[in-house]
Amino acid sequence: MSTSDKTPMNGAESLVKTLLDSGLDTCFTNPGTSEMHFVAALDHVPGMRSILVLQEGVATGAADGYFRMAGKPACTLLHLGPGLANGLSNLHNAKKAGSGVVNIVGEHAVSHIELDAPLTSDIEGIARPVSHWVHTSLSATDVGADAAKAVHAANIAPGQVATLMLPSDTAWNDGGVVAQPIAPVARPAYDEAALEGAIAALSGPDSLLLLGGAALGEGTLEVAGRIAAKTGCNLLCEWSNSTLERGAGRVKINRVPYPIDQALEALVPFKRIVLVGARAPIGFFAYPGKPAILTAPGAEIIDLCKTSQDINDALDALCQGAGAVDVAPAHVAASTLPEKPDGPLDPDRIAQVLGRTIPENAIVVDEAITTGRSFFPATAGAPKHTWLNNCGGSIGYGMPVAIGAAVACPDRKVLALVGDGSAMYTVQALWTMAREELDVTVVIFANRVYKILRGELTNVGVSNAGPKAMDMLSLDRPTLKFVDMARSMGVDATQVSDCAALEIAIETGLATKGPYLIEAVL
Amino acid sequence: MSTSDKTPMNGAESLVKTLLDSGLDTCFTNPGTSEMHFVAALDHVPGMRSILVLQEGVATGAADGYFRMAGKPACTLLHLGPGLANGLSNLHNAKKAGSGVVNIVGEHAVSHIELDAPLTSDIEGIARPVSHWVHTSLSATDVGADAAKAVHAANIAPGQVATLMLPSDTAWNDGGVVAQPIAPVARPAYDEAALEGAIAALSGPDSLLLLGGAALGEGTLEVAGRIAAKTGCNLLCEWSNSTLERGAGRVKINRVPYPIDQALEALVPFKRIVLVGARAPIGFFAYPGKPAILTAPGAEIIDLCKTSQDINDALDALCQGAGAVDVAPAHVAASTLPEKPDGPLDPDRIAQVLGRTIPENAIVVDEAITTGRSFFPATAGAPKHTWLNNCGGSIGYGMPVAIGAAVACPDRKVLALVGDGSAMYTVQALWTMAREELDVTVVIFANRVYKILRGELTNVGVSNAGPKAMDMLSLDRPTLKFVDMARSMGVDATQVSDCAALEIAIETGLATKGPYLIEAVL
Repeated sequence: MSTSDKTPMNGAESLVKTLLDSGLDTCFTNPGTSEMHFVAALDHVPGMRSILVLQEGVATGAADGYFRMAGKPACTLLHLGPGLANGLSNLHNAKKAGSGVVNIVGEHAVSHIELDAPLTSDIEGIARPVSHWVHTSLSATDVGADAAKAVHAANIAPGQVATLMLPSDTAWNDGGVVAQPIAPVARPAYDEAALEGAIAALSGPDSLLLLGGAALGEGTLEVAGRIAAKTGCNLLCEWSNSTLERGAGRVKINRVPYPIDQALEALVPFKRIVLVGARAPIGFFAYPGKPAILTAPGAEIIDLCKTSQDINDALDALCQGAGAVDVAPAHVAASTLPEKPDGPLDPDRIAQVLGRTIPENAIVVDEAITTGRSFFPATAGAPKHTWLNNCGGSIGYGMPVAIGAAVACPDRKVLALVGDGSAMYTVQALWTMAREELDVTVVIFANRVYKILRGELTNVGVSNAGPKAMDMLSLDRPTLKFVDMARSMGVDATQVSDCAALEIAIETGLATKGPYLIEAVL
Repeated sequence: MSTSDKTPMNGAESLVKTLLDSGLDTCFTNPGTSEMHFVAALDHVPGMRSILVLQEGVATGAADGYFRMAGKPACTLLHLGPGLANGLSNLHNAKKAGSGVVNIVGEHAVSHIELDAPLTSDIEGIARPVSHWVHTSLSATDVGADAAKAVHAANIAPGQVATLMLPSDTAWNDGGVVAQPIAPVARPAYDEAALEGAIAALSGPDSLLLLGGAALGEGTLEVAGRIAAKTGCNLLCEWSNSTLERGAGRVKINRVPYPIDQALEALVPFKRIVLVGARAPIGFFAYPGKPAILTAPGAEIIDLCKTSQDINDALDALCQGAGAVDVAPAHVAASTLPEKPDGPLDPDRIAQVLGRTIPENAIVVDEAITTGRSFFPATAGAPKHTWLNNCGGSIGYGMPVAIGAAVACPDRKVLALVGDGSAMYTVQALWTMAREELDVTVVIFANRVYKILRGELTNVGVSNAGPKAMDMLSLDRPTLKFVDMARSMGVDATQVSDCAALEIAIETGLATKGPYLIEAVL
């Protein structure tokens, strides 16, 4: 704990200073009464960029996207239990993505909690299911040290959710002490005992190197490409990935498909599977009469390196063991420009348009759900870009994550591909994009239905869905007008319904500084 | 448990039938894969009105409003932990309001939970902080009985939040058994030992009868008015009330003010306070150097009847003990029509407009925050109406609660008075109002600032807020265009900025069948 800063300060100021000293300089917030001293400290302690959101789900999703692209946590500042609760589902997604987030949650003054005021709730109880680390500060003196611990916890690989409750008296009382950053924990070693078996397993087309997490960077994928070239193994990654580097010149990798039958088919050839940063594939949901374990029965699965472990080392060791260090990588994507598609929009044609328009260095946030399942092949040869998936399955992640990515990378274009049902979950994100003039082009795929659920009805064995059931999956009564909605929050927008117009609209959006929304009607 | 229904059925069908047999016929939902069998059952089992929302905060808020006006719970159908999480803050509000809600939360099939799929989370952990009753069904055979227990728990006075997890295999497996409703628990008796003291305490202007919960109905208020007439005691109710019957011809009751200083001033005269359905007033928040207990030091507080106990009996006994049974009630509101205000909108003039336009039998949902603090005096003499407050303090309650009230009372006009900051929390509610053609007139008070927080900065002792702090409390960059936003979700709308236009707009909204939104720019 540092005592170098001799100016008397309150707990809130020591908190902001400690966060800054620990490398955190971005805060997504919707504050309330109990957070006013933190808000005031933003002016007294320069260096923290504070971004206002209209609903906390935007704040937590933005923190997720920020971590994925900045490689360090942002903090959120949330108002008591209900503010945290509103951000909970995107914290669930962040946790599943391995994103580090530091939540600062205001709490009543310690003496006030027992009075059970209207806003009193069990904040720690709300935090625990989505947090790796939960703590309530008990005095102004503790706040700095607690904040350093929270940042430390959030930085544990691949990234963790840390939630610190800040009772308002610990914020306003004097006695704050700025704490030194705690040295980060190195990633633990991969399972060296499994290395020999992993090297032996990767041989020929019935073997698979399944990658996830930090294995999906440009450099690590290149190592994987060398291994594949030398051993003849296949490469796949999980369906949902925090970030995946792809595009022309990079080693191309396909995802294990989402639909169970397609996933089973994709995985049935593999007798030996080595996991590096990935988990053995399982079904997103259970379905009656279908397996939940997607790998072929009897397949040998070697868990070489978990997503929290040293993935770089694991891949280097595999590469060396396979004698592939000097081999040219396989599966390097060539630069390709899909043909210009014509006519009305469908998923394959949209993929072609994307393959034609994704710019160099773009960040693509993919929450296109059913529409997006066919986006990968036609975009593999686009200029180099980063692809982000929803790892927790809670919809409403796309636009908030795009905010965080744009804040983290102001020099890169962000393309957010979002289904209409998903977009409405956190539609308030548009306002923050406008307010912060973020360079995000949002494409809403308006099929006016929770289309994934139409398929899921059949998958779970419902063969006789009636009109009331179908009505619960339908978004067309009334039709959502996304162009008006975007403009109502200060974001310019257009509606398109054919391929040529979509291509022009995406080019317009990318050429525009600031946010732009395209409603693509399917 | 009933076995009278001999048709084989799956767990989901037994659930819907049991809910119907237990008197629940309304479901607010945004379902997902794990809820598809419940959705399918809606067609096979007639009688359950199912209402789709675009975000679960709307569903849980609607269930809160429904309970307040229907006097019985609705159910919600939510998708796994994240769907519940999105509804959590309005469940917090419902819990604090004493509203009964039955949440049905889909869960993965029992065998799938241990696989830790993307959407897997600790649902019971998420549910517990906002629920009085939490249970996970373990087999299709159990689902009916579990549902009956959930309804029973939700009906415990004044109303409780019951959350039942439904693993998808317990929904799709055969073996469902419809359960008989469980007889409701009667409200426990008030504290009879305190009666004599309470009767003695209520005497003269330094005594107060403080009412809450079920004491705020027309009949109970009339009894309280008799007691006041006979004893000379004062009447007040809490700041936040689930429902308060008011208007011309009813006994008028003021609320303990929200601002600490005003509350202290309002309560300082009282040396003896009798609580019936209310709690002793405390501050919404703690503030440095201000008391949290708002009653005068040394005041005698007699807790005659808690909000869960038999409030009718308590008031009758008080009335009898005071010899007030045949006395005409005091404080009966006369019918008054405020003067027609002129010029730009301010809180007092808006109150006058409301006093002129609230129609007979209206339901007023009040989330007007700062703008609304002065609404009570000028509306006290309007035709009879019901006033609903936010009892949990989590903003975003207004429009969802208005949905539930409109569904519960299709023959009554609903007027939702909402601050702009609050409205944006659950703005998706507008779409459901349009879809269900609900008779709700929404007035958004657009002061373009989290105005309450501007005051709170000073209250918590921040005297030197800088530009970054003020920016976090401001909604004017960009300006939210509520008229466009409403229309984008199918709700007709208008913007007004003076008193005459507001009066016309409210009259137009009330005369329109279906929803209407008025952006009142302050």
